[in-house]
Amino acid sequence: MLENEKLIRLALEEDIGHGDLTTGSLIDRDRVAQAVILAKESMVLAGLHMAQQVFIALDPAMSFESVFQDGAEIDKRDEILMATGKLRALLSGERTALNFLQRLSGIATLTRQYVNEVAGSNVRLTDTRKTIPGWRRLEKYAVKVGGAYNHRFGLYDGILIKDNHIVAYGGISEAVARVRKSCPHLLRVEVEVSGLNQVKEALESGVDIIMLDNMDLNEIKRAVNVIDGRALIEVSGGITRDTLAEIANTGIDIISVGALTHSARAVDISMRVIV
Amino acid sequence: MLENEKLIRLALEEDIGHGDLTTGSLIDRDRVAQAVILAKESMVLAGLHMAQQVFIALDPAMSFESVFQDGAEIDKRDEILMATGKLRALLSGERTALNFLQRLSGIATLTRQYVNEVAGSNVRLTDTRKTIPGWRRLEKYAVKVGGAYNHRFGLYDGILIKDNHIVAYGGISEAVARVRKSCPHLLRVEVEVSGLNQVKEALESGVDIIMLDNMDLNEIKRAVNVIDGRALIEVSGGITRDTLAEIANTGIDIISVGALTHSARAVDISMRVIV
Amino acid sequence: MLENEKLIRLALEEDIGHGDLTTGSLIDRDRVAQAVILAKESMVLAGLHMAQQVFIALDPAMSFESVFQDGAEIDKRDEILMATGKLRALLSGERTALNFLQRLSGIATLTRQYVNEVAGSNVRLTDTRKTIPGWRRLEKYAVKVGGAYNHRFGLYDGILIKDNHIVAYGGISEAVARVRKSCPHLLRVEVEVSGLNQVKEALESGVDIIMLDNMDLNEIKRAVNVIDGRALIEVSGGITRDTLAEIANTGIDIISVGALTHSARAVDISMRVIV
Amino acid sequence: MLENEKLIRLALEEDIGHGDLTTGSLIDRDRVAQAVILAKESMVLAGLHMAQQVFIALDPAMSFESVFQDGAEIDKRDEILMATGKLRALLSGERTALNFLQRLSGIATLTRQYVNEVAGSNVRLTDTRKTIPGWRRLEKYAVKVGGAYNHRFGLYDGILIKDNHIVAYGGISEAVARVRKSCPHLLRVEVEVSGLNQVKEALESGVDIIMLDNMDLNEIKRAVNVIDGRALIEVSGGITRDTLAEIANTGIDIISVGALTHSARAVDISMRVIV
Amino acid sequence: MLENEKLIRLALEEDIGHGDLTTGSLIDRDRVAQAVILAKESMVLAGLHMAQQVFIALDPAMSFESVFQDGAEIDKRDEILMATGKLRALLSGERTALNFLQRLSGIATLTRQYVNEVAGSNVRLTDTRKTIPGWRRLEKYAVKVGGAYNHRFGLYDGILIKDNHIVAYGGISEAVARVRKSCPHLLRVEVEVSGLNQVKEALESGVDIIMLDNMDLNEIKRAVNVIDGRALIEVSGGITRDTLAEIANTGIDIISVGALTHSARAVDISMRVIV
Amino acid sequence: MLENEKLIRLALEEDIGHGDLTTGSLIDRDRVAQAVILAKESMVLAGLHMAQQVFIALDPAMSFESVFQDGAEIDKRDEILMATGKLRALLSGERTALNFLQRLSGIATLTRQYVNEVAGSNVRLTDTRKTIPGWRRLEKYAVKVGGAYNHRFGLYDGILIKDNHIVAYGGISEAVARVRKSCPHLLRVEVEVSGLNQVKEALESGVDIIMLDNMDLNEIKRAVNVIDGRALIEVSGGITRDTLAEIANTGIDIISVGALTHSARAVDISMRVIV
Repeated sequence: MLENEKLIRLALEEDIGHGDLTTGSLIDRDRVAQAVILAKESMVLAGLHMAQQVFIALDPAMSFESVFQDGAEIDKRDEILMATGKLRALLSGERTALNFLQRLSGIATLTRQYVNEVAGSNVRLTDTRKTIPGWRRLEKYAVKVGGAYNHRFGLYDGILIKDNHIVAYGGISEAVARVRKSCPHLLRVEVEVSGLNQVKEALESGVDIIMLDNMDLNEIKRAVNVIDGRALIEVSGGITRDTLAEIANTGIDIISVGALTHSARAVDISMRVIV
Repeated sequence: MLENEKLIRLALEEDIGHGDLTTGSLIDRDRVAQAVILAKESMVLAGLHMAQQVFIALDPAMSFESVFQDGAEIDKRDEILMATGKLRALLSGERTALNFLQRLSGIATLTRQYVNEVAGSNVRLTDTRKTIPGWRRLEKYAVKVGGAYNHRFGLYDGILIKDNHIVAYGGISEAVARVRKSCPHLLRVEVEVSGLNQVKEALESGVDIIMLDNMDLNEIKRAVNVIDGRALIEVSGGITRDTLAEIANTGIDIISVGALTHSARAVDISMRVIV
Repeated sequence: MLENEKLIRLALEEDIGHGDLTTGSLIDRDRVAQAVILAKESMVLAGLHMAQQVFIALDPAMSFESVFQDGAEIDKRDEILMATGKLRALLSGERTALNFLQRLSGIATLTRQYVNEVAGSNVRLTDTRKTIPGWRRLEKYAVKVGGAYNHRFGLYDGILIKDNHIVAYGGISEAVARVRKSCPHLLRVEVEVSGLNQVKEALESGVDIIMLDNMDLNEIKRAVNVIDGRALIEVSGGITRDTLAEIANTGIDIISVGALTHSARAVDISMRVIV
Repeated sequence: MLENEKLIRLALEEDIGHGDLTTGSLIDRDRVAQAVILAKESMVLAGLHMAQQVFIALDPAMSFESVFQDGAEIDKRDEILMATGKLRALLSGERTALNFLQRLSGIATLTRQYVNEVAGSNVRLTDTRKTIPGWRRLEKYAVKVGGAYNHRFGLYDGILIKDNHIVAYGGISEAVARVRKSCPHLLRVEVEVSGLNQVKEALESGVDIIMLDNMDLNEIKRAVNVIDGRALIEVSGGITRDTLAEIANTGIDIISVGALTHSARAVDISMRVIV
Repeated sequence: MLENEKLIRLALEEDIGHGDLTTGSLIDRDRVAQAVILAKESMVLAGLHMAQQVFIALDPAMSFESVFQDGAEIDKRDEILMATGKLRALLSGERTALNFLQRLSGIATLTRQYVNEVAGSNVRLTDTRKTIPGWRRLEKYAVKVGGAYNHRFGLYDGILIKDNHIVAYGGISEAVARVRKSCPHLLRVEVEVSGLNQVKEALESGVDIIMLDNMDLNEIKRAVNVIDGRALIEVSGGITRDTLAEIANTGIDIISVGALTHSARAVDISMRVIV
Repeated sequence: MLENEKLIRLALEEDIGHGDLTTGSLIDRDRVAQAVILAKESMVLAGLHMAQQVFIALDPAMSFESVFQDGAEIDKRDEILMATGKLRALLSGERTALNFLQRLSGIATLTRQYVNEVAGSNVRLTDTRKTIPGWRRLEKYAVKVGGAYNHRFGLYDGILIKDNHIVAYGGISEAVARVRKSCPHLLRVEVEVSGLNQVKEALESGVDIIMLDNMDLNEIKRAVNVIDGRALIEVSGGITRDTLAEIANTGIDIISVGALTHSARAVDISMRVIV
């Protein structure tokens, strides 16, 4: 919460700097008005509180009305938010508020599409750490709004032995044993594997979760057979919306998709002042 | 430069937090290694210095080799950067370095594609303020690397009278006159118009630049005729890569495209440790 | 606005540190009182909001009455502000509040004197970048309160090719052409010249504004003749209040005066507690 | 030291912001050059390290030569500092470096003039807390460079019972007794008085230092007689350079002068690039 | 006050980070509840405002009831504070609020025990600079709540010539003379000595306060005789609660005890939610 | 690493503020010397790098020699560290460096004593979140240096359903099921219980770890029998060094001890300048 506040102040400083020259010249300091924020395409809404906090940072007395909450599916031309307050605050905050809303709703919208592909299966769809530096908490929030789950937030709250670790350390079993010995008891251990041989080595190491990296459908199916419920299975890499449903039905537990954050485009939202 | 440093520290804190549990457990503190950063698709490179600074923040003695510089067109499988230093720094910094590189190169790559569409014309392609909050300077840097130009950086370094200003203030001529009177003498004045009537009103106000907002090709052509060199002409809104060339050949001066930043997807880049 | 808040917190930390030992020892924590801020000389008032925010930072319930606003011409012995709140806050904030008010009113007062010298002419009087590091926005605000205009705020919001640039780059025409090609289209280009030859070179380069640096009255007049309306003319350097009016009547457009900020002295203001 | 660094970064961000458009366009990134910083009038130098640190912040490899140190008396046309490094850093840092140097040398120069007036007496000349918010440490440093002494730095490192305290608390004797009881044993207690009656009351309270506020020469002499060595005597208020020597010879111990900081004007210093 | 706020934000970020996973999963966002903070042992209370500010940072509408104030002597099972507000804020803030309260009350409790040992004497018990980095103001506040006095806060608000200074400078008399000449006139000068010879040298130097370092009872008595009221006497080092009273009755003025802060253990306090 | 740097700067600002008056007056700016840091009692060393970084912050050229590393068992009178550099930096940094070293070594020393009590068992000794706000990472580092393990760092990197959660949510089984459903797949779930009935309910919920809170030895033994390897067992609350060994031999897995951090006293360390 405190972190969001810092990012909003940073964003306003970045956009307004020493002053909004156009608005400051044209609009009287005390004039009050309304503005409506409008969906220009259908979307899943995320970040309403960020948009509101942007305006509040510029006018603490700003008030809001909305029939929607984060997570709502919104149609083109829906009124997302009505804001009433200082006209200068509305005009100077417009772009920053929209930039938050468009990015976060973009992620939630894309996530919802992926989530719908695996609906009906028991598979958990998660994000990755492929996020915009400085935005991880916000982007992972939007992923949850979209209906998916969060993977670890960083290198500090989850153990994941990746290919580079194995290359450097020299063997899955030894790596798992060593990590297990030192890691906090509240954490499970996951290992990334790229072939059936590694799947077997991982299984024997007693790891809790096995990540199948960039395997095709057949390999995944064989891995599921081999693992046979003795570890949770995560699939990652090379997944598109088209292949999602089929992969979800192989008996695996988790699919992690970097595209939810690294390839989400902004949805189209605009603001109109009412006088 | 100082701001980049702050963002890198923020990004590392966000990803590493109280410690990289996996790497900290597996890799000896003083072990030195090499890692190569690889293009997994063709791209225009941007952000090499950010990736390097990420690793340097974790190991001040990290050294680098590269045959490329920002702006280079890179092929799939090209080696973007070879880094030599503490293995822990390489592994703990990997994701953050790649997140910077993938986002910035994504913007530069998309921008280059747009720039190529208007090659041969005298039109200047620019970005907008539709950027990730906290990333404006970096994203505008990537746009320049891609070959386009920067529009204003914020509300403080350029006068642009937009539709909401006109609605609120009540008339283009009056608005232009008022802004002209108070704005710093080093700045030009631009006004956004949405129809030919407004084009004429803008022209008569003596404004320096007229932005044609969301007009179709025919309207643009008529506006060019009316303006007839008496103001610079910027076109914005509803532009796709397909329509770009045609618009560029109407005699206008500037095309601004929000998609360069708000819809760029990350390009695919990975890191491989060498032991 | 956010930046002012930071400076106020910095200033209070600087003055109060680990505690106001005298006030903390003598005054009960909850005692409420009034204090009046008084002009000890005539002045143009600037910075009233800063003084108020200082007291509010120490007592959020502090309330204020004043018949004046920034820009008012105030006489010796006028009551600038009446503040009611915690007596500890009044005593601990006194010096910091006065330090803001005295410096900003000092600048506004000096500026008003210069502005009055050019009253009746069409010349625009502006400040420069010769400000106290960390105080640029505040000092430029005080200049506007005094009735003058702001020049650029920094190196980022205006193009000004100075003597050192020309020495380093090697020619006005080439420099203007190169800057024009890359600079944002919302910015004009200004060049500093120190003799008639350079005036002519600048004119031919098609620059928007020509700054006559440290020229005497005769040179200025000849330059005005040569330029003949083909560029805006700014005069800078070696200007005193005595020469201001004469220069203003030569047909130039802008006079920039560093003294408005770098040589303003604090005006005399004091606070008296009422019990 | 750390605080100076913060102020320099703040100052550079304030002046350069998202980039020095003129220099960035005209000067190649790697070009190296020299620049000389020149006195345009005679002065006492102060702040050389601040100017150097400004350039170093922009180019860590910047090197310097100077025959002067802070405190030196410098003549018009003297070369204060020769800097060698990236030309971009020289040009982009010029104004900020000069702003520090001009303000601090301005204070040192004015202080030296005051100090010279009391030379030969045993009186200690000190500054006050009438400083630019955010600059107290720097300005008090410049005062010492000029040859005077520092009074307390803030409300936390010295006990001074002022007129408003006495009005609010109700009596010098009681106030001194109460402060003495609670104040740290490493601190003396000073009280401000405005007439002979108060001088006597202060003396009886056993206070360590008595500040004579805004008294004329005759009153000061009578106070010195009354106090007769039983407390240190500080004189403050209404002192000009003309009256300084006479006051210094009355047998008092300390003269504090707000003008050293609140009315110092910037001295004239410029920079010339050498190619 | 501003500094406390920063420490509270830092503490909450440290404990809550990207979210309280347990509470966020189990407790509805808007549910309101009460919680009582309970003493699990007898103690002197300190830090009530810090605990309250922790909860307020998480729920600005949190309200409190308490019959105690800082400094109160509290019994086991006493209800220290009743808080009413968002249940999420109560549960997420619990540990941080208690950590502040337990540490500060621990210091106040230990201090009160030491203070009671010297009750009836005129000796002033003080803390030292042996505090947790980042916590000096808070810990010195707790010492005052416990009934003792503060020594200097840092190296900036008191002159204390220690053994290492004397070793390095080469003689007490010269050191005292040199410091006296340059130190602000509001400060006294103290010197640390370790034997009777040094006591005599210190006395002759005219120092204000003499610190007897690590002397035994007999040495202290002899030093008191020698000094005979010509300087204040501080005793420091090697003092335990057992020897405190005896030392206090030797005629010295001040005893400084590092243990008040560096060896205080947290007192036992817990929180119980009421539903 | 970056966070340590911030804390060191904060600590130095807190102690040195506007200047070390004593050292600044007595010691020449450029004088170089040596200082030795000495153990005044036996201890386990922790925080050597923090002490070094304190001195480096004041003199970047400071160099060090030591035969010890963090974790070493050190005897009274051992030389912990020899530092060579600016004498001013040694004297001004002394207290801050020692404050870090004494607190961290105090924790490591106490932890080692507890660890020795459970040597030979398979029990893992861990810390808790009962740490000094702002110091969690440092204190948990010292615990590891002492030979124990870290529990979770905060509310964000581990699921622990505590008594207050159960009271508020209304039942262990439902709480575990709900948390399991939403928590990241890399985390285990732990629940705190206070009696055998709750142990059984916890077991049936399928929780991963059961924390026995404040149970006596007999209850613990019965709980171990009931759980019978179906969950990890953590014991917490009411543990002293005397009862540690006995509890460790009951067949439980983890003992968490708040005292490691909240009741560690500073060990005695001093610095001596060598001239």
